[in-house]
Order: sequence, then structure tokens, then C-alpha cells
Amino acid sequence: MHGPSEVFRGRIGVVGAGALGIFYGAKLSSAGFDVHFYVRTGYEVVRNEGYKINSCDRDFVIKPPVYHSVEEMGLCDLVLVGLKSFANDTLPYLLGPICTSRTVVLTLQNGLGNEEAIARAMVQCGVQSNEADASRQIIGGTAFLCSNRVAPNEICHTAHGFVRLAEFRGTPQARTHAIAASFRAAGIDCEVRESLSAIRWEKLLWNIPFNGLGVAAHHADTAAILSDDELYRAATEIMEEVRAAARADGVEIDPALPADLIKKTLVMGAYKSSMQIDYEQGRPLEVEAILGEPVRRARQAGIAVPKMEMLYAIVRRMDRQRQQEGV
Amino acid sequence: MHGPSEVFRGRIGVVGAGALGIFYGAKLSSAGFDVHFYVRTGYEVVRNEGYKINSCDRDFVIKPPVYHSVEEMGLCDLVLVGLKSFANDTLPYLLGPICTSRTVVLTLQNGLGNEEAIARAMVQCGVQSNEADASRQIIGGTAFLCSNRVAPNEICHTAHGFVRLAEFRGTPQARTHAIAASFRAAGIDCEVRESLSAIRWEKLLWNIPFNGLGVAAHHADTAAILSDDELYRAATEIMEEVRAAARADGVEIDPALPADLIKKTLVMGAYKSSMQIDYEQGRPLEVEAILGEPVRRARQAGIAVPKMEMLYAIVRRMDRQRQQEGV
Repeated sequence: MHGPSEVFRGRIGVVGAGALGIFYGAKLSSAGFDVHFYVRTGYEVVRNEGYKINSCDRDFVIKPPVYHSVEEMGLCDLVLVGLKSFANDTLPYLLGPICTSRTVVLTLQNGLGNEEAIARAMVQCGVQSNEADASRQIIGGTAFLCSNRVAPNEICHTAHGFVRLAEFRGTPQARTHAIAASFRAAGIDCEVRESLSAIRWEKLLWNIPFNGLGVAAHHADTAAILSDDELYRAATEIMEEVRAAARADGVEIDPALPADLIKKTLVMGAYKSSMQIDYEQGRPLEVEAILGEPVRRARQAGIAVPKMEMLYAIVRRMDRQRQQEGV
Repeated sequence: MHGPSEVFRGRIGVVGAGALGIFYGAKLSSAGFDVHFYVRTGYEVVRNEGYKINSCDRDFVIKPPVYHSVEEMGLCDLVLVGLKSFANDTLPYLLGPICTSRTVVLTLQNGLGNEEAIARAMVQCGVQSNEADASRQIIGGTAFLCSNRVAPNEICHTAHGFVRLAEFRGTPQARTHAIAASFRAAGIDCEVRESLSAIRWEKLLWNIPFNGLGVAAHHADTAAILSDDELYRAATEIMEEVRAAARADGVEIDPALPADLIKKTLVMGAYKSSMQIDYEQGRPLEVEAILGEPVRRARQAGIAVPKMEMLYAIVRRMDRQRQQEGV
């Protein structure tokens, strides 16, 4: 399916080095790519001991170049953005010192609106003069990865890891295929797709019900949701709302996909969504990217998404309340 | 508006003597009616000290006859049911020893399905041989009352108290008007209405959004709901779903009522719904009467109530989870 592509051989910078950014950066680094990490939390231990990846595939350790400031990290040819979307207001500060007008920025963040935030940030920090030009530097990706950060320099990778890439504006280019080839060379299943909207909405098909209900329905992991007849019904009906919202955004999701995802989720057992874990650990939630922006796009298109709206209203309130309480 | 009616002068028994049952029973008792209380919690203190009603209208104390068993209480002409609806499975035990086939049972419980549960209970305990006959003994009422039980024998009444009564089956009778007249004689604003469904759905118009969101949206009192644009929107849209469900049940709710209720709720300040208080105090929730049964009736009628369904799914899960945790 994938034609032979030249791999991308440039200077790669990782910003937002959490469970996702570290995992992909480490895989690429381990395969010999030139990967540099901007490290906010645990800089000393990462510099001294490197990153330990405890993986269902193969454990490994890397000792890559790490930086405590983006100014020290310097200019990159490719930037991997692994930031949680609620931290997008730091993007101008993060991208300014490491991007030129030729840098490719690949965001593996969840949900909708991140590419737009990156384009705005690139204009704000002066890398580009307008968002249209900035947008052409951006690639979006969806990562299907079960990994957790268990220590500042340690990742536990329990399942999956495949990535789908698509240009933010326009169709796949040589660079898109080259980056995918690099991921594959690093042992990551990676495919290039024509439509970024399609891969974003396909991932939301799972993320909206299971992240949303995981928080709204009182610590409900996937098994709790799927073993409760009302929550099961809600999850499947939310998936149909997501399909309708996607359709209004030009994306036709295979009608068989919801049932297929439910089946795959059933065998995952008591899996906690990233949003549920964030909530349990008192961290802010990616509520706007995963719930708010999809709801707004549906509303703009005049599509009724009443259950998604309820999830958004409830989870947003829970997130704000939690932050206020300072838990 | 109310024609002169003879007041009801029989033996009145109160079962489910919580914040609501105690308040109305005490008002009637204080006005000289023959009211007997079945007391589960705090029997000794109630027997020794009576009930203290700290009321926005007038503080008072009563020392009525109280019983620790329904067998001791004996047969009544009128039974006031103030039980929380989740305890309806105890109805056969409670009603059996105090009801004859001529006793009138007035339920002031919240939500839908309580009259049916009482009719079933009266057959189960042998008071009647069939539910149709039992149903003709039942009057339903909605109470608009802000009261809390602050000690086993102490009620804090902060606002309102008016009651609407309607026969469960058929139109108002002499007895309906007589009971209403007794309530009024006891200083309780009380009106007789033609349709029980109408008064139940009108109360649900407030109870479904504000009880449901009060629990689902993380300790959200009315001010928290109405000051959050997404929750405000959800509350008003839920009210339209309730109107649609009521319409399918033969009840046309005035289209101006939702906005009117919102306005009245705005001036209530940070008011906590009974369900929110129950949840915060670790008590079971009236989830089936207030959310489940309305959702089931809408579904049976083929009416879409997606936001009500979400509230039901989430609050039911929270209630079950809480009971499991034994909080």
C-alpha cells in the first residue's frame, strides 16, 4: 500500500514530551533519527538517565539531547507536537525559537482545532506573516496509542501505536510520505491519508463517547460504560451524532465503524480513557478539543448533537470546578 | 377560586416522615387534625420532644402520637405518603396494617410511577384484590416546598409549601376537595386540579433539569447551572424535551412556563435540589421516579428526549456507583 519513500532526515524537535511525545520521539531516536527533546518536567533525571520505554513490543532506553528551554534546543526541520490541547496558549512561546518558515510541524494532539491553534501561534511568534502560509507547514496525525508516563523519564506502553498522517491543507506531499516512512523505519505502523478531517473525526468517533462518559459518568472505564445498558445505549447514540457531525464537515464515516469500535472496545476490558485518567489525577481536561470544538462545528452546520452537547456541558463544568477547587 | 368545602375529619397517618411528610403532617396536626406519625428514625426523641418546625412562616412545636411500627399505628382514613420513591418496595409492609379498602392514600412523592407502585402495594398486602380498585383510593399531589430535616425531630422550612392535588383515576371528588380544604385550614395553600398527569409533568419541568444537572454536573446548584452558558442552554433544552414528553402523555404545558420557571429559579440564588442534597449526603437518589420513568414514557411514545436520556444514564450510574462504594 505504501510506495517506497525516502525517509525524512532532518533535525526533529519534540515539544510536549508526555506519554505520547516521548514514545514517538524515543522510537525515532532509537532508530537513529536526530531527535531533540524539550523537557519541562524532570529535566535533570532525563538528562542523566535518558528515557526508559517499557513497551509491550520491546523495552529500550535512549539518551537523546534534551533541553530545558526551547531557545537552547534551536531550529528544527520537523517539530512533533505532543502537547495537551489545553496548553495550546503556550504554542507561540514553544514554536517561536525552533521554527522557520520551512519547518514542518506535525501535531499528534487529540481532537479538533489544534492545527488552527498552531497556525495562529506561528503568526503570533513571527514565523509566518499569515495563517494561510503557516497552515501549509502543518501536518496533522492521529495516534492510536496506549501509553502512560509512570515517571518523569519513564513510559509504559501497553498496546497499539499506529499513526495516521494527513496534510492540514491540501493533499499528501513528498514530505508527508517521507515522515511516514521515517515512522515506519522506527517500527511505528504509519499511513498517509488524503483527508485530515476524516482521520480526526474517525478518532473522535471513539474519543467523544468514551472520554466524555469516562468523566461525566463518574469514573466510568470502558467496561463500566459497556456493561450498563443506559450508558451503552448513550455511547452508541453519541457515535451516531459524531457521524452526523462529521458528515456535515464533509467526512463520511463508514456506518459499520461504530459497531466495530464497540466490539474492539469490549475486548479492551476495563480501559480508562486519557480524559478519565487526567480527571482522576486532577489534571486539566482536553474538553474543548475533544468535546467543545466538535459541538461548535455541529452547531454551525445546524446538526443536532444533543447528547454530545450534554457531555460537553457536564465535562466542561467538572473541569472548571476541579480547577477552581485546585484539586 | 376554591368553593367552600367541608374539611376532611378522619384519622390521618403519615408514612415516610421526612422533611416533607413531617412538615405537612405537623401543619395539619397543629391545626387540630388527628395526625399520627410512623417514625423510623429518631423515634425516642420525637416521642419525648415532638417535632420542631422552624419555618419562614411561623415556628411551632407539636407533640403528636408517634409509632415505631405501623401495626401499632393502626387503621387510618387518610394516609400521607412522604416516602422517597426509591423506598417504594417497602410500601406493602407500610400500607398493609394501616389501610382498609376505604382508606384514601395521598402521595406527595416526586416524579412518575409512585401512584402505580402504591396501587400494586395495596394489592400485594391484600387491601384490595386488583389494581384498578386500589387506584381509585389514590390521590396524587405535588408539593412545592423548600424544607430540610436538620435533626431527627427538627425541620427547617425556608420557602413555599403550596400543594396541588388530583385524583389518580377520574376527576376530583368531594373527598379531594375536602382534603384540600383541610390543608388550607392548616395554612397550606392547596388547590385541586383535574389532571394528575398535568401537575406531575409541570413539576418535572423543573425537577428533571435541576435535579438531574444538580447531580450530573458536579455539585451544581441552581446558580451554578444558570451562570454557565452551556448548562443554562442544556437546562432550557431539557425543559423543551419535558414539554414534548408531557404532550405525548396528554399534557400540554404552557409554552411560557419554562422561561417563567427559569426566571423564578434565577431569584432563588444558589439553591440545591433535593437530589443534589441526597447525593452530597450519600443517600440513594430518586433517579427512577424523576428521570427513569419520564424517559421510559417518552420512549414508549416514540418521543426523542436525548438530553433527558443522558441525564438518566449518568445519574443512574452515579447513584449505583455511590451505593456500591457504600459512601
